[in-house]
Amino acid sequence: MTDLIAAKKYGGVHTEEEINFIINGTVDKSIPDYQISAWLMSVCFQGMTFEESAMLTRAMAKSGDMLDLTALGGNVADKHSTGGVGDKTTLIIVPLLAASGIPVAKFSGRGLGFTGGTIDKLEAIPGFRTSLAMDEFIGQVKEIGAAIASQTGNFTPADKKLYELRDVTATVNSIPLIASSVMSKKLAAGSDIIVLDVKCGSGAFMKNLDEAKKLAETMAEIGKRSAKTMSAVISSMEQPLGNVIGNGIEVFESVQILKNEGPEDLKELCLYLSAIGLLKANKVKTIEEGVKNLDKLLKTGRAYEKFLEIVKHQGGNVDFIENPEKLYETQFAFPLESTKAGYVNKLDALEVANAAKLLGTGRDKKEDSINYNTGIFLNKKIGDKVYNGDILATIYANSVTEGKKSREILANAYELSKEPVKIPDLIIETII
Amino acid sequence: MTDLIAAKKYGGVHTEEEINFIINGTVDKSIPDYQISAWLMSVCFQGMTFEESAMLTRAMAKSGDMLDLTALGGNVADKHSTGGVGDKTTLIIVPLLAASGIPVAKFSGRGLGFTGGTIDKLEAIPGFRTSLAMDEFIGQVKEIGAAIASQTGNFTPADKKLYELRDVTATVNSIPLIASSVMSKKLAAGSDIIVLDVKCGSGAFMKNLDEAKKLAETMAEIGKRSAKTMSAVISSMEQPLGNVIGNGIEVFESVQILKNEGPEDLKELCLYLSAIGLLKANKVKTIEEGVKNLDKLLKTGRAYEKFLEIVKHQGGNVDFIENPEKLYETQFAFPLESTKAGYVNKLDALEVANAAKLLGTGRDKKEDSINYNTGIFLNKKIGDKVYNGDILATIYANSVTEGKKSREILANAYELSKEPVKIPDLIIETII
Repeated sequence: MTDLIAAKKYGGVHTEEEINFIINGTVDKSIPDYQISAWLMSVCFQGMTFEESAMLTRAMAKSGDMLDLTALGGNVADKHSTGGVGDKTTLIIVPLLAASGIPVAKFSGRGLGFTGGTIDKLEAIPGFRTSLAMDEFIGQVKEIGAAIASQTGNFTPADKKLYELRDVTATVNSIPLIASSVMSKKLAAGSDIIVLDVKCGSGAFMKNLDEAKKLAETMAEIGKRSAKTMSAVISSMEQPLGNVIGNGIEVFESVQILKNEGPEDLKELCLYLSAIGLLKANKVKTIEEGVKNLDKLLKTGRAYEKFLEIVKHQGGNVDFIENPEKLYETQFAFPLESTKAGYVNKLDALEVANAAKLLGTGRDKKEDSINYNTGIFLNKKIGDKVYNGDILATIYANSVTEGKKSREILANAYELSKEPVKIPDLIIETII
Repeated sequence: MTDLIAAKKYGGVHTEEEINFIINGTVDKSIPDYQISAWLMSVCFQGMTFEESAMLTRAMAKSGDMLDLTALGGNVADKHSTGGVGDKTTLIIVPLLAASGIPVAKFSGRGLGFTGGTIDKLEAIPGFRTSLAMDEFIGQVKEIGAAIASQTGNFTPADKKLYELRDVTATVNSIPLIASSVMSKKLAAGSDIIVLDVKCGSGAFMKNLDEAKKLAETMAEIGKRSAKTMSAVISSMEQPLGNVIGNGIEVFESVQILKNEGPEDLKELCLYLSAIGLLKANKVKTIEEGVKNLDKLLKTGRAYEKFLEIVKHQGGNVDFIENPEKLYETQFAFPLESTKAGYVNKLDALEVANAAKLLGTGRDKKEDSINYNTGIFLNKKIGDKVYNGDILATIYANSVTEGKKSREILANAYELSKEPVKIPDLIIETII
């Protein structure tokens, strides 16, 4: 192992045998942690080729269970987002694709950070079961075209072990390590078509476009080298996606979109990502054609019906979908009023996330509990005209102290200009 | 600690408090090894300022015992060599300085690698005690001006711990880490004047001049920042120093020099390094004056007498110094004959070291035993004229197999040219 660390330290390229040695040694503990962490740090500085990253990803995927979805017909889609503020696209894209005839066997996670993950958001629906046995999970996809569950069983133990070590050795931030971590879980999850949504901006892990592009490209290359049908979109995360941030409140907004209501930016991104799925599954000839078909699907209510079906199958109380306002009923609501007039020219996603975090929407450690009902409603976003006294945002809180503190932070997220502001592009780049 | 690793990863500069935190946590084991090794790897890539290196060195020195030599008058000298093939300068410089009235309290080590360290070489003298109690050690320096012993007690435990980790995580090769490791031991050893001999070339740790200069400069800066009187010489290690490589045989050659016999290159370097000691102790005004005085000292036999005195005080059998050929009596001697005529234009120090190693002159692990009597005598060195059939070198071995194998390797170390060859400079640079 010392030789392999030295090889990477001096910019060498590992063979498949070497990568397998490292990953096997990580899982069976035959390589001590201090050697693995030194190697990880070398990778942070020297990087990895696409081929090395692909080999690392495969080795990690193979370190545990691999889901076999061949019974579902070889056209199963998955979508992955690198995470951003107000990102509830999974809740919308899964029923959209399923309603279009593309099966989606979706594994999601709980979140660490400012809000919960998709699984936490779904658990805001009373009764919703996110922990499904594998046969039930696959059976549901077969029956209604979609299921969303948390990953149980022994998936990618190598990734878990490496991530724990990376987290405490300042080696999280490395494109090949991030890409292989994400993609190892995708390979183990067994889908055939993978659509990636890489966020870029103040509220995203990737702060600049070059890094985001590099990450998207690396993940796409890794997938292709394991015979996956890959595509990636780089989308802006300078301001939050959609108008709401929280857990239950994000389910509420997803229902709005599925009913063909709700904010345009969120709808645009969901239709675009889903249209790529349609294109990749050979259901349409262009992304534009896909977007058009999906827009119709929203209007007919079939996507909404599919979501209801998923909720019912997984034990969720449908009353909360039919009356989704119930998902963010809190004791207190604090409006944030503007003290001047103008146009919103900045709405810092990271500051909004910090304001939400204060309300208990997220967690720092796995064991922490989260609040399902709290959240933020952004009444104004970039480009919107604001009068003095207008409500910029509304904070839904369980306590007065938290609500007021959150409002203070949120006030810093907004920046107004006197001149009208152009709304920035949401979709920055597409890798097909 | 994760934040400190990240700070170094992104090129930050540590404060003294941060460095102390890391070193204390290394010794008391409150920081896990996997974090220390990730930090070490970051240091390999990002380096350290002189000030950081000095703080690290002080923290490591203070992690254990610190020898107090103030009773010896504040003018105690030490000399450190980064190690090379045939380097027996300590055995010569210590009596030279002591005979010049400069006390030397010299700690040396056993060696890992192609030959033993100074302590191993001295143990080739039957009866010689290298393990002295601290009061005996200091008492001997007070009485006769010099002592050479192995370090006992709890010196620089932080360095020991870090070195163990560096050895298995490919983080040995870093100038600030090498420099602080060496200098922490020097600070703990308590001398006032430190003369460094940094070797550069195929047989040295530093293969190129830039690296050697950087190391010399870093060690000098570290010492100055702890109020030590520093100087450094960069000397060539393309071919071995002197004519012999081994343990007992190196004592033999040292005795030759002290009797004003023996090879010119070894004498030149020993006088030069000792003259710097004289200059720094204000005994002379220039290095040239120092060299002249020391040359006289050799001629009067006073340096040789001082060495005899040291050997006697430490229990060594003086018969082996008076008849030093006894120190390399082996059953077999194999001459390496030249198969062509010309001038030696290359004598690869690393290949010579490998040939010596085969004879058991060195060890791979601390526990290994070494041969004191085996070794190599180089009859021809760079620049020497060689006739077909001339003896290039002689191998002193305890077995025929080893002797012949060693000779085979040694043959590859020599390269002859038809044109006369200029002898390269031994002393490349001096930092005063």
